[in-house]
Amino acid sequence: MASASIELVEVCPRDGLQSVKTFVPTDIKIKLIRDLYAAGLRRIEITSFVSSEALPQMKDAKEIVAAAKSLDGLDASVLVPTVRHAERALAAGATHLVFVLSVSEAHNMSNVRRSPSESVSEYERLVAMMPAGIKLRLNVATAFDCPMKGRIEEAAVLALLADLVLIAPNAEVALCDTTGRASPSHVAHLFTLAKARFPTTARWAFHGHDTYGLGTANVFAAWQAAVNVIDASCAGLGGCPFAPGATGNVATEDVVWMMDRMGVASGIDIELLCGAAERIRLLPGAQTGGRVRDALASQRKLAIRAS
Amino acid sequence: MASASIELVEVCPRDGLQSVKTFVPTDIKIKLIRDLYAAGLRRIEITSFVSSEALPQMKDAKEIVAAAKSLDGLDASVLVPTVRHAERALAAGATHLVFVLSVSEAHNMSNVRRSPSESVSEYERLVAMMPAGIKLRLNVATAFDCPMKGRIEEAAVLALLADLVLIAPNAEVALCDTTGRASPSHVAHLFTLAKARFPTTARWAFHGHDTYGLGTANVFAAWQAAVNVIDASCAGLGGCPFAPGATGNVATEDVVWMMDRMGVASGIDIELLCGAAERIRLLPGAQTGGRVRDALASQRKLAIRAS
Repeated sequence: MASASIELVEVCPRDGLQSVKTFVPTDIKIKLIRDLYAAGLRRIEITSFVSSEALPQMKDAKEIVAAAKSLDGLDASVLVPTVRHAERALAAGATHLVFVLSVSEAHNMSNVRRSPSESVSEYERLVAMMPAGIKLRLNVATAFDCPMKGRIEEAAVLALLADLVLIAPNAEVALCDTTGRASPSHVAHLFTLAKARFPTTARWAFHGHDTYGLGTANVFAAWQAAVNVIDASCAGLGGCPFAPGATGNVATEDVVWMMDRMGVASGIDIELLCGAAERIRLLPGAQTGGRVRDALASQRKLAIRAS
Repeated sequence: MASASIELVEVCPRDGLQSVKTFVPTDIKIKLIRDLYAAGLRRIEITSFVSSEALPQMKDAKEIVAAAKSLDGLDASVLVPTVRHAERALAAGATHLVFVLSVSEAHNMSNVRRSPSESVSEYERLVAMMPAGIKLRLNVATAFDCPMKGRIEEAAVLALLADLVLIAPNAEVALCDTTGRASPSHVAHLFTLAKARFPTTARWAFHGHDTYGLGTANVFAAWQAAVNVIDASCAGLGGCPFAPGATGNVATEDVVWMMDRMGVASGIDIELLCGAAERIRLLPGAQTGGRVRDALASQRKLAIRAS
């Protein structure tokens, strides 16, 4: 049953900023996270602990974690690709870790220089070292489509999940459309299969992109399949590394608008969110997307002219 | 049951060009229609017969109808708001008329200077004068939302349809999201109600906009509700008169891409369609939209660089 409310995970400070080449000063990042919090977001992927050489944008991860602690009730998560980086994240005070691996061998090798089965072993070690009270989320990248290999068979996803779900039955599991080439019927079908196969997994999430114009359609399909946790990036920040110049993550404001129109509660103030999106758009090197921001801004101008 | 194929109605030459202020020369319009035909489109709304003073862009409707006759197997439709304009269209050789009226009284008054019930009477007169063999489609504007009045109650749509369906039981009926503010659940619900209430209407169509980023999501919802006729505008041409600067009709190439990815046949060559869209984008004063064109162009550039 599709739910009357959804839980949004704002990924702009991590997935969005990750593809911005110009370093965004730490205080601007903190201001951005505060803006998103003020709009009502209570789950934010705030940064990642990765190699600073590979991804200089995330070199201030420790400071970002410290700053987010002042926001009451914020569930701030951080992405970690390995045990070593997870240790750094925990030492910095992170309370919610996101482990990522790819179904596609080619993509996983390129992303974290491991085969998927090596990443499964890494996940096992990560789960073994997790202190009590720390939350865990698993991001399954290329669950629908791979930039190198095209469509990913559902059987391959389910086979990988069989190992992963056993390792940490309580982890939230996100199926990620890394390329934006999943279709809504594909999204609905894979979640339906996965939920039936792994009934002990209580929390499923969808992470989608708008590169081919299917951002909101895929979120709608996930919602229909009773997926209640949805990733999105304010202003659609991020672009697409596999289609330079095209848009990336589905825009949070487009998802919030759609849910509002369907009477589905998300707890977000769309005006404040669009304000945050406007400031994100001004970041040097920002590749943004989304429709709702421009449409609402245009409506506001008409209302002012008519009054 | 959602269908394994859909019928696309390309509305760019009418709904798209209608909002372009600079007059597009007749030969360019004909070239555009030929491009769309070459991409596989076999239903195209090619022009409208309206007042040339009110809408100078459509003053060459007669020439457009004549030119389209040379395209073998093309079902070319023309929009007519009144009996008088329908007579002009038929005299010019049109074989498929689209009558439009609005559920919203405020919108109908502004659009065709009649109350909805006066438009129902006009429709009755139109149906009475239709020669045999001429196809008829009914466009129900503001079936979901009105630019002046906001959300339209489903009961109001069904009440108006009760009169209209009796007048011409064989007409195709399009429910139109004039503002782009319908949500996918709203689209699905209204079509489900209407199809149950009017089982003799064999052909239902959805006409949607992407102004708020829900273009493909709403088409997906209509398809799920077994609506097999979908309107779209190549390059998303048209903009939105109610939100200047925002995008308008859902882009045909985005719909074709989505359907392709779902294994739903549309009979369209997406590369040829994107080529047509590129030329449309270059028209002076064109306000375009859509995502797929840029994403595919970027993919092509990468492929060339890698080869």
